[in-house]
Amino acid sequence: MLGTVLYSPGDIRCEEVAEPEILHPTDAIVKLAATCICGSDLWPYRGLQPLNGPTHMGHEYCGMVVEVGSAVTTVKPGQFVVGSFCCSDNTCPHCRFGFPSSCENREFMSRAQAPLLRVPLADGTLVATPHMPDDDLIPSLLAVSDVLGTGWYAADAARVRPGGTAVIVGDGAVGLMGVLAAKQMGAERIVAMSRHKSRQDLALEFGATHIVSERGDDGVARVKDLTGGIGADSVLECVGTQESMAQAIASARPGGSIGFVGVPHGVELDGQQLFFAQKSLLGGPAPVRRFLPDLIDLVMSRRIDPGKVFDLEVPLPDVAEGYRAMDERRAIKTLLRLS
Amino acid sequence: MLGTVLYSPGDIRCEEVAEPEILHPTDAIVKLAATCICGSDLWPYRGLQPLNGPTHMGHEYCGMVVEVGSAVTTVKPGQFVVGSFCCSDNTCPHCRFGFPSSCENREFMSRAQAPLLRVPLADGTLVATPHMPDDDLIPSLLAVSDVLGTGWYAADAARVRPGGTAVIVGDGAVGLMGVLAAKQMGAERIVAMSRHKSRQDLALEFGATHIVSERGDDGVARVKDLTGGIGADSVLECVGTQESMAQAIASARPGGSIGFVGVPHGVELDGQQLFFAQKSLLGGPAPVRRFLPDLIDLVMSRRIDPGKVFDLEVPLPDVAEGYRAMDERRAIKTLLRLS
Repeated sequence: MLGTVLYSPGDIRCEEVAEPEILHPTDAIVKLAATCICGSDLWPYRGLQPLNGPTHMGHEYCGMVVEVGSAVTTVKPGQFVVGSFCCSDNTCPHCRFGFPSSCENREFMSRAQAPLLRVPLADGTLVATPHMPDDDLIPSLLAVSDVLGTGWYAADAARVRPGGTAVIVGDGAVGLMGVLAAKQMGAERIVAMSRHKSRQDLALEFGATHIVSERGDDGVARVKDLTGGIGADSVLECVGTQESMAQAIASARPGGSIGFVGVPHGVELDGQQLFFAQKSLLGGPAPVRRFLPDLIDLVMSRRIDPGKVFDLEVPLPDVAEGYRAMDERRAIKTLLRLS
Repeated sequence: MLGTVLYSPGDIRCEEVAEPEILHPTDAIVKLAATCICGSDLWPYRGLQPLNGPTHMGHEYCGMVVEVGSAVTTVKPGQFVVGSFCCSDNTCPHCRFGFPSSCENREFMSRAQAPLLRVPLADGTLVATPHMPDDDLIPSLLAVSDVLGTGWYAADAARVRPGGTAVIVGDGAVGLMGVLAAKQMGAERIVAMSRHKSRQDLALEFGATHIVSERGDDGVARVKDLTGGIGADSVLECVGTQESMAQAIASARPGGSIGFVGVPHGVELDGQQLFFAQKSLLGGPAPVRRFLPDLIDLVMSRRIDPGKVFDLEVPLPDVAEGYRAMDERRAIKTLLRLS
């Protein structure tokens, strides 16, 4: 079959790779309905994260189970499933505490930019839809697997509450999903920080009530203006740089909460500044598995349409164009068609 | 009257100072029943925090109102009151959000190591006891003003829950109050990290179920042992050094919470480590005013006895011995008698 392999920064290829096989009794093989490129794939693509030789890419997926290992009991061939980018047993103490992305048996998914995927810990990782979804729901179900689940976690970690104010730092795909999540959680004012027209439009469609195009101190000042000088109850940090983290912390009110889901690169926090800022911080790899049943239900009942975040679709063999478009910010997020 | 003045590191004096007067209509003058020395007073005493000339010391207080400004309506002369080390109006958005220590009109108290004290923002800052307290309750009411309120906030910020596990890093007075708070909040396992017999004993008296005398990686390993490898739900960081913060973060379980109330000195946090640790952080100057009514009630009804944290009492003129004893860790916390 075809699959994508990153050879070196900028050199992503679609080439013949081995089909996956059941390696452990807890595995399942899933025939993917679609897959996609993640903002986090751009870190190694841009040379900002070390590569250990050619690397199979992709960790977002949904599709039909075609084979299961002998120990798998909760999903079976023929079912449509969605899984997290992070495989988890869903039974260990960390999973039961709501943090499956810190599962004692955690495995980060890879190799999902391909038609067939081996999913470890299938019982814990996969959630089946109640029936076969209509084709037009595939992008949204695919989004649940990571980008929506991560934006949702940002809102959850930032303790978005009905009636509250949420600020979203970052207008990438995760940030836009954070807007959608804040809307679903009942935030009254949702401030999307974005300077790109197409992303601003999508943010407004997902529920943003205000757009702030300024960044840094100017952006913080605008948030303060919008909140009567107080600052936001909740801030979703969806970038991962020193500047975006500083902006997120400064935008929150004292006692407010920052959920950070942009993997920090080069971010240092001064303890005493954080102390006197008096703001709550929680971040990490999103515990998507915790949210899967609810998010699948929201999509299947057509109450949310996160699939709109995909503004480019290319066939798998054209994956290089998908990466380039995201790298150059011509595309928010690229869906890879598998047939 | 007599009051304490810090002239330079190690040089604390009790000398004649001016009596306070009403400066603003919102002020009250309180005749203190007792006052004390705070662990945070040791930072400048040890030369670890810059001094701008001779500095009047003290920020913990309780006593009887003797005079109020023309705008004060909620307390009156003759009432016994307790206030926070941080004066607040109790009406601004930050106060109403539960963070009076970030009040828009915040003033940090000083000059409380003296018989008479001017309290700004008296309506917002002071809470009267329902009746004149018995003399033996004075140390506990004094503790409410800061050391208990701060330990309480550490437990609150660390989201201590009934049935949960709480680890307290730091066996100073605040840490010991954190033990008491965790007990009151229903923690089932309370691990006090302490290597000093007298402090271990007091921790056990306040409700600790386990004592861990190891520090650093060894201390973390012991906490992991005690929690089946999982880590603690809640960690109270009551020191403020790089080592103690690292120990606190490492002791918490993924998804667990760290409340940090030791003012950080030289603490740097790596964003990416914090991300993958996936633990919640909240710290800051304790919003003691939020807790005052409940804590006063707990003391007045004799359900808690935080005053036991004072293991040394000296008359105000002997304040230098009080500082020395705490600096040399001969005393946990020194109460200063005013009459």
